[in-house]
Amino acid sequence: MPPEVEGSEATERVLQILSTSARLFATTGYDGTSMRDIAQACNISKSLLYHHFADKDEIFARITLGSTRELVQFVEGRLPEGAAPSVRIRAFMAATGEYFQRYRWAWIASTTAFWNDPQQRRQTERMLWRDRYEGLIRRLIEEAIEVGEIRPLDVPLAGRLVLSALNWMHRWHKQDQGMPAPEVAEAYFDMIFHGLKR
Amino acid sequence: MPPEVEGSEATERVLQILSTSARLFATTGYDGTSMRDIAQACNISKSLLYHHFADKDEIFARITLGSTRELVQFVEGRLPEGAAPSVRIRAFMAATGEYFQRYRWAWIASTTAFWNDPQQRRQTERMLWRDRYEGLIRRLIEEAIEVGEIRPLDVPLAGRLVLSALNWMHRWHKQDQGMPAPEVAEAYFDMIFHGLKR
Repeated sequence: MPPEVEGSEATERVLQILSTSARLFATTGYDGTSMRDIAQACNISKSLLYHHFADKDEIFARITLGSTRELVQFVEGRLPEGAAPSVRIRAFMAATGEYFQRYRWAWIASTTAFWNDPQQRRQTERMLWRDRYEGLIRRLIEEAIEVGEIRPLDVPLAGRLVLSALNWMHRWHKQDQGMPAPEVAEAYFDMIFHGLKR
Repeated sequence: MPPEVEGSEATERVLQILSTSARLFATTGYDGTSMRDIAQACNISKSLLYHHFADKDEIFARITLGSTRELVQFVEGRLPEGAAPSVRIRAFMAATGEYFQRYRWAWIASTTAFWNDPQQRRQTERMLWRDRYEGLIRRLIEEAIEVGEIRPLDVPLAGRLVLSALNWMHRWHKQDQGMPAPEVAEAYFDMIFHGLKR
């Protein structure tokens, strides 16, 4: 679950509710998940669930908006200062892989909510964080071009290539199986930066 | 809409129904879309809709299973025979971009149905076509390694990188705006094959 709920205030119960809800939203959708479903899946009473969250929307907001904002903050905090742009691009990718690995269900719920977040205003705010994330990778690529590490090219498209590789991981990467997500992200960096060509 | 319905048997009406349904499924989900919604969006009576399709599931099957199978056949038919593997990989990517551009809503409906296709058996059949599609790009990469065009690397991961770039297009590419999808696919090929490095 997102880092902000890992503090001392957050109970294990809240973490369990968020993680379970994220899995339910991801597999059966927002509309297909009721507070009763969440309580049952957590093996707690509905009244205990309502003690922690006013309604389903509050849970959903914590997962989706929270995970987008925290992804950006998580990644920004892991870029080595003063390093070459290419090193920072690699760190950007590895950090995203690590975030994905840690907060897997929140990531998936957030991704599948893309098309139909029930609240337009919240979707707009998520998009602002999403744009900041995308802006960050573009700026890193621009810096790499400026210092001559990357050849002159279509920066927005190169940024999308990097993000596509990372964003598609949830569709095929299995938890606790095969290469860990941060390593996959680094292998992708290697392929994209150096190219497949012999 | 999928090529198989472009034949002489297919009426414009059926194409309209499939295209409209695909858009509705993609935006409000399978459960959130009723036969009444489809009829209204097509501006036709429910009885005329039922004249063409027995139920919502038949429409859904035509869109999702149909579009996966036809994507594979469409792409296979566009690989230049006898050409170098790298040329065929580029053709694979451009053909996928063209298919995406032509059958956009079917593509999106098919993608969003990934997590919750109401019929397990059909989902299994779609996965077989999906595997064949993925098998094709892996084989092309292996051939490119054998002839020395591509350096020895993790073939499944390189295939996933190619597919991630293509599969993520529906999340950002706007119809009739910016670079056409086949050109985007070719630009991605260029970046992945040659690398971003100067």
